[in-house]
Formats: sequence, C-alpha cells, structure tokens
Amino acid sequence: MAEPPAWKDAWTARVITLLPEAFPGILGLSLTGRALSAGLWRLETIALRDFGVGRHRNVDDTPAGGGAGMVLRPDVVGRALDAAAEGVPADRSRWPVIYFTPRGRRMGQADAIRLSRAQGATLLCGRFEGLDERVIEEYQLEELSLGDFVMTGGEIAAMALIDATVRLLPGVLGNESSTEEESFSEGLLEHPQYTRPAEWRGRAIPEVLMSGHHGRIAQWRHEMAQQVTRARRPDLWDAWLRRHGKTDDGK
Amino acid sequence: MAEPPAWKDAWTARVITLLPEAFPGILGLSLTGRALSAGLWRLETIALRDFGVGRHRNVDDTPAGGGAGMVLRPDVVGRALDAAAEGVPADRSRWPVIYFTPRGRRMGQADAIRLSRAQGATLLCGRFEGLDERVIEEYQLEELSLGDFVMTGGEIAAMALIDATVRLLPGVLGNESSTEEESFSEGLLEHPQYTRPAEWRGRAIPEVLMSGHHGRIAQWRHEMAQQVTRARRPDLWDAWLRRHGKTDDGK
Repeated sequence: MAEPPAWKDAWTARVITLLPEAFPGILGLSLTGRALSAGLWRLETIALRDFGVGRHRNVDDTPAGGGAGMVLRPDVVGRALDAAAEGVPADRSRWPVIYFTPRGRRMGQADAIRLSRAQGATLLCGRFEGLDERVIEEYQLEELSLGDFVMTGGEIAAMALIDATVRLLPGVLGNESSTEEESFSEGLLEHPQYTRPAEWRGRAIPEVLMSGHHGRIAQWRHEMAQQVTRARRPDLWDAWLRRHGKTDDGK
Repeated sequence: MAEPPAWKDAWTARVITLLPEAFPGILGLSLTGRALSAGLWRLETIALRDFGVGRHRNVDDTPAGGGAGMVLRPDVVGRALDAAAEGVPADRSRWPVIYFTPRGRRMGQADAIRLSRAQGATLLCGRFEGLDERVIEEYQLEELSLGDFVMTGGEIAAMALIDATVRLLPGVLGNESSTEEESFSEGLLEHPQYTRPAEWRGRAIPEVLMSGHHGRIAQWRHEMAQQVTRARRPDLWDAWLRRHGKTDDGK
C-alpha cells in the first residue's frame, strides 16, 4: 500500500459485542484486511461482558411478563453505549449509532454510503431474545436489519455493514470505477458477466461482447440489466421506471 | 452436550470460497460453535484456488466486452462445483446449491427453514465483479442475495445463512419454544422486550407486563407486534392482513 497509516482520521467501527474475539474475523482478510493493516479504517471492539452486573457479570435477564429466552439489560447496555460515546461526535450524522435487529429497517447500499461519509459508527450487536426497549428509546438507537431472518446475534450483520462500508472508503478499492459500475449504483441489478474461455461446455460468450463495438456492448448490457431487474425484482424495476418517468410498456 | 457426535448424518455446509481461512470464524463461537463441536452440523470448505488454471492458479479473468474488475472463470468454478457434488444427493431439495450475489432473490427465514430440512447445502461465495453467467446456467445455481448492498465477497452472506439455518437444527437451541415465538414465525415483527431493573433512568417497564395476568400480557404483546409491523414494515403488514382475511381499518 502506498498510503501511510492514518489512524487518527481513519473511519472507525466501534463494535459492542459479547463476542469480541469474533473480530476482525473475515474483515481481517482480503480487501478489508489489507485496508485495515494500511490504516484506511480502524476496528475497536467493546466487550459487553465488561459492563455486566454482579460476580458473574450478567448482561441479560428473563423477559418481563414471561416467555422464552433472555433479554439484554438496559443498565448494562447503557454503560457500554456510554463507553462507546467517549471521544466521538454526538451528531448522529457524523457518527451513527446502530442496533442490529430483525425489527429494524432493512439496511441497503444507501446505509453503506452514508456510513462511509461519516467519521465512524457504533454498532451494537444483540444476542438472545432482544434488547430492553428502554435503551433503544433512551439512546435513540437506529434499528437496522440485515434481512427477514433470525440469527443467533448481530455480529454477522455488523460484519456485513462494515464490509459494504469499508470498500467505499477512499483508497480501498484499487479501481475506483468498480464501485460506480456495479449493482444498485443505478438502481438496476447487474447485467450478466462473461470471461475466458470463449467457449465452455458448448456455451459461447454472447457475440456482441466479442465485437469490440463499445456502443453496442454498453447498450446490450443496459438492456440485460433492465431485463434481469424486471424479471427478478419488480420492486426495484418499478422504482427505476418512476425515477426515469417511464411506464412499463410490456416489452 | 448430552448428544454424541453424529458426523455421518449431521447437516453439512460445503462452502466454496477463495478465503477458506475465514471459516468457521464466528460460526466456531457461541451457539453455532458449540453445535459444531457437538457434531450437530458439519462445515467443509472447498478452496476455489485449488481449481485455478496455470502456474498461478488463476481463478478469474477480465470481463468479455471490457469493463472494470475481474470475473470468475466458468471452467474453474465448474471444477469446484463438481468436487462439491461428490457424495451428495443430486436432488436439489435435499441438497440446495446456492450462489450468493446481489442479483439473486433476497434470502429470508423460509430459506433457513428449507435448508435446515435438507441434508446439507453447497454455498458458492463469489468475489470480484461476478461469476461467468454460463456456470450459473450450466449448474442451475440458485442465486440468493443477502440484501441490496455490495460486499467484497459472498462469504459473509454464507455465514449469515449458515447461522440462521444451524440454529433451527434439532438440539441446537436449548429452549425449543424460542424459535417458535420469535420474529417472522408469525409474519409479524416482534413486540418490545423488557427485563430488570424494573425502573431505569426514570423509565418503568409497562405495567401490564408486571401484572402476572398471562392473557392480558399475550394480548398486549400481540397488539404491539401488530403496531410495530404496521409502522415499520407495510409490506409484511399487508401480507399478514391478507393471510388473515382482514383489511386495515386504520386503527
């Protein structure tokens, strides 16, 4: 890496978790790992267990009103959030504070872009049945969901958001144009891709891609992106049509 | 763990990846980690690099027709998929073969349930710009997306799906009822949760939850689940209404 480490100003993920040993994990490898080593971003873990109560440092208790599972205590999580707030901007646009839960808004590329433009973010990973609602209100936590499924904790969601964010930071991707051409930048799914060999198991690369005619290639790709989006994601397709002031003519 | 290891019949994730060292990663910790040690599921990684071409074991090449980034070669990925198919059922309902890509259908709880009822799954993790379309067609890969955002690779998506699946396997969750009460089981987001202390920073646990009246508690929770779903996820709310033959009366 040509850039020297710039720890002080580097984008920072502060992760509150019961599993600090899970980090950096996969984020320490490949593109995000090289960027971490180069000081293009920082990772700080805050062990929720350190803020637990009593001799056993308990972080959870049974749900008020009964039911299965355990709920994270508001006092414990509150103290961890206070620790995470030290030395960072109180302005949430400069430093989002996010709690991962299936009850949240589904995260998307816009969240990664927003985070990459902030100085950093605090990411609270839940475990067990959930988090006492009063913490969410008291700290005005932003609730984000990775998707409509249930995981054992929020750590993998945090990794997904960090990965999606870090690759947008300046200097992380070698080829800047790569982030611009890809999925969602334009609101359409990506066109099909092909590479060598030119023929494989009786299947050839579409002729237009071998033509060398840049205009025709760009047009073909755009048409394919529209086709695949229309077939697979009517929601994205409708939004794209609206944004372009078009109606679906059934083509 | 009371159950002895049962490797032979255990649910198995076969992960094709350029980063085999990323596994088990977080899946080796906590609930999924204990279940892995107990033999309740198996994890096998297949290093894509082993199937690369030439002296440098190249796995990718430039996109046909030009453009940024690199595309995974069909011959390389095809050989890895052939290796992954050894000794597993050809019936895709018994052994799904999944490729993670933002172009895919968004995965949900139904996918975790489906996978948990299969014998295992092959999970192909992409890197770079994408995968040669001909492999997707030739192997009829099921394309799943973690969400509408772009990551450096499919590994975190694979981890998310494995986590969501493993916790549904028999014997993994201590309290079986936990999976039934939670989010998405009923098509609604979960009601708010509370635990000790009863009062925290001037905020009390809602009185009904302290009443000991199980019927009222259940009713309150159901109403709160409806409220939060209606406010946050109109799509889930509409589907729930349709399923229950109701219309939104604006309450």
